[in-house]
Amino acid sequence: MSIEVSNKAIAGALAAKTLELLSTDIKNTILADMAAALIKAKDEILHANASDVTNGKNKGLSPALLDRLKLDEKRLKQMADGLIIVKDLPDPVGEELSRTTRPNGLLIRKVRVPFGLIGIIYESRPNVTADAAGLCLKSGNAVLLKGGSDAINSNKAIVKVLQEVLAVHKVPKEAVQLIETTDHKAVTDMLRLKQYIDLIIPRGGAGLIKEVVENSLIPVIETGIGNCHVYIHSEADPQKAVEITFNAKVQRPSVCNAAEKLLIDETHAYKVLPLILAKLKTAGVELRGDKASRLIDNDIKEATQDDWYTEYLALIMGVKVVKDHHEAILHINKYGSKHSEAIVTENEKVAKEFMERVDAASVLWNASTRFTDGGEFGFGAEIGISTQKLHARGPMGLPELTTYKYLVKGTGQIRQ
Amino acid sequence: MSIEVSNKAIAGALAAKTLELLSTDIKNTILADMAAALIKAKDEILHANASDVTNGKNKGLSPALLDRLKLDEKRLKQMADGLIIVKDLPDPVGEELSRTTRPNGLLIRKVRVPFGLIGIIYESRPNVTADAAGLCLKSGNAVLLKGGSDAINSNKAIVKVLQEVLAVHKVPKEAVQLIETTDHKAVTDMLRLKQYIDLIIPRGGAGLIKEVVENSLIPVIETGIGNCHVYIHSEADPQKAVEITFNAKVQRPSVCNAAEKLLIDETHAYKVLPLILAKLKTAGVELRGDKASRLIDNDIKEATQDDWYTEYLALIMGVKVVKDHHEAILHINKYGSKHSEAIVTENEKVAKEFMERVDAASVLWNASTRFTDGGEFGFGAEIGISTQKLHARGPMGLPELTTYKYLVKGTGQIRQ
Repeated sequence: MSIEVSNKAIAGALAAKTLELLSTDIKNTILADMAAALIKAKDEILHANASDVTNGKNKGLSPALLDRLKLDEKRLKQMADGLIIVKDLPDPVGEELSRTTRPNGLLIRKVRVPFGLIGIIYESRPNVTADAAGLCLKSGNAVLLKGGSDAINSNKAIVKVLQEVLAVHKVPKEAVQLIETTDHKAVTDMLRLKQYIDLIIPRGGAGLIKEVVENSLIPVIETGIGNCHVYIHSEADPQKAVEITFNAKVQRPSVCNAAEKLLIDETHAYKVLPLILAKLKTAGVELRGDKASRLIDNDIKEATQDDWYTEYLALIMGVKVVKDHHEAILHINKYGSKHSEAIVTENEKVAKEFMERVDAASVLWNASTRFTDGGEFGFGAEIGISTQKLHARGPMGLPELTTYKYLVKGTGQIRQ
Repeated sequence: MSIEVSNKAIAGALAAKTLELLSTDIKNTILADMAAALIKAKDEILHANASDVTNGKNKGLSPALLDRLKLDEKRLKQMADGLIIVKDLPDPVGEELSRTTRPNGLLIRKVRVPFGLIGIIYESRPNVTADAAGLCLKSGNAVLLKGGSDAINSNKAIVKVLQEVLAVHKVPKEAVQLIETTDHKAVTDMLRLKQYIDLIIPRGGAGLIKEVVENSLIPVIETGIGNCHVYIHSEADPQKAVEITFNAKVQRPSVCNAAEKLLIDETHAYKVLPLILAKLKTAGVELRGDKASRLIDNDIKEATQDDWYTEYLALIMGVKVVKDHHEAILHINKYGSKHSEAIVTENEKVAKEFMERVDAASVLWNASTRFTDGGEFGFGAEIGISTQKLHARGPMGLPELTTYKYLVKGTGQIRQ
């Protein structure tokens, strides 16, 4: 067990006891000050980030990863703005979720409270550092951050700034901590510290999520694996079918709510599939399909069994012709990742059945899968998109970073 | 991997697809018929139970365990009545939790849905079999039951009756299944079947809970470990202090919401502790305490460090004198199991601070810890009492056996 990890978990759990009692006003003041401090520390942060980028280049990181790693003034401004957005959201802590007076006179209140200490394990993007710290702070939680080793200098610089603001306000700086060792074993260590860490949220690729789920003794919220489908029903409006599929696949292919698969009813396939594929090809999308789809368009490569399970996060799309919506629903429930699934149809009855029977966090009718997002749902900000069913499903905002407790007020009642 | 376990998990996941669509009426009819069928099958069930009891005696089970295992007409009637209580509770499935129309015209609804297939792993009491099946059915979930090997014949007889009722109503009998192998490895196997089982709820002792948490790849709700405290503040009413402590410890010592520890302010200890202890002694409670308490009553044995962590589930109570409520809160947050914690005081400010700062599912002021219970909270029935913070905390009723999904209705919206 890493001494750094266990010491920081202990200190974080202690800091959480202060955090849970902070007033909304002081939390908001701290968030505003953190935003200003990030801008003020621009030179230090960008300097630290430049060394991460240099190291990444030397290590041979892909241009896509280097782009995710890189900060500039604009991105730093967005990071600061993110904290202001969180500041302006309602404070979930203390919300009364229910209140009952029992026949024996007991008053039972159910009240939102913070989790305590939340562990966030994430990969290369350094903006997650400030986002996660802001969301945890506003929801009254201390946070223990374990970022990717590629971003270590950027993360250290950002956390240093945030901790300085905490200190100014006499809040324990251990409310926001970063694991500084880049030894990956630190992740495994975090996952054992059930006594101090109340919740683990991994944000990253399928490998990281799997590792965390398999090793954690602490409750986990799985996030962000999206093998999302767009299903074109026989009564789909062709124009909507083309636009929604294109948007879901192409608008931002590297994110979890981008579509990876296209399913289309066989009665509609000869007419509509060529229109959709023509548009996808304008963006250079590589197509991998089943036999029936390849009879319609011989640019489509043969899909393997693995393809149906794969989240490409790239300009690649699987294409499959299905008999009807029953087959589409079965396919999606078998191969999907329970993230976001869309149907395009003008038939309300079929849409309703699809929405009822598809097992996913978000089921969309005549809308792009790209809308499954905290911002688009009106949450203001999100800590991630849950693909599990326990506690939170879909985009998670501030309320999802809280639990509750029952406060029972009596006058000496005993149980009969 | 046991073939029985994997086959039943696959069949259960499939049955869940039917269960989630059942109307409230049909679920209620099935529950009423199940209750009647249990009474009608009295002879078979009691006969099966008698062989479990005989086997238990031969194995040398303790009288307490034999009592938990044993069914009679009265207990069978209670089991049937439990199903009627669940029938009469509101159906949580389909409840609209929120509805928003976004500026772009998307209608976003958040709707309660069943989990799918729930795995319940429990120990000797056969009534859990019917209770869990009823609660899962009403909340639209299929259930895979793994009961204790001591109750295997009783559980088989009960599940047979429940499945016959399902078959009459053309509902897949795999909606309620029992793992029949008594090989404990079946538990480990269940915990790996993430693809089919959506949630695991262990009900039993600390050893079982720990085993499940450490081995499960499936999200778990931990239940029922209660190292609960009653804290007597310096401004406690002595009469309430005596009655609440006695009730919390003695009324039913074998359950998780019974108190295990008594904390008392030093300024109140000389006056009030003897009154409390005198009453506890009338019930034969064994006392284990710290040095200060033993100076007040030399019947108190010396407590070890382990005692402060222990859930006795017996007529034993730890006693500790504390300086004030700050020390009491620190002690409880360190040694408690986050289940139920009570303060006895007439000082509202101290009570409020205690309720805010104690980290537990249920914090009670001038009331016995024994009130943390689904029935006492007005939930009608409970599947267990959660001691974790994720998803559900404290007594879990029907709503806690559901998750939600977002249903998004558009008119062709794409993301900009």
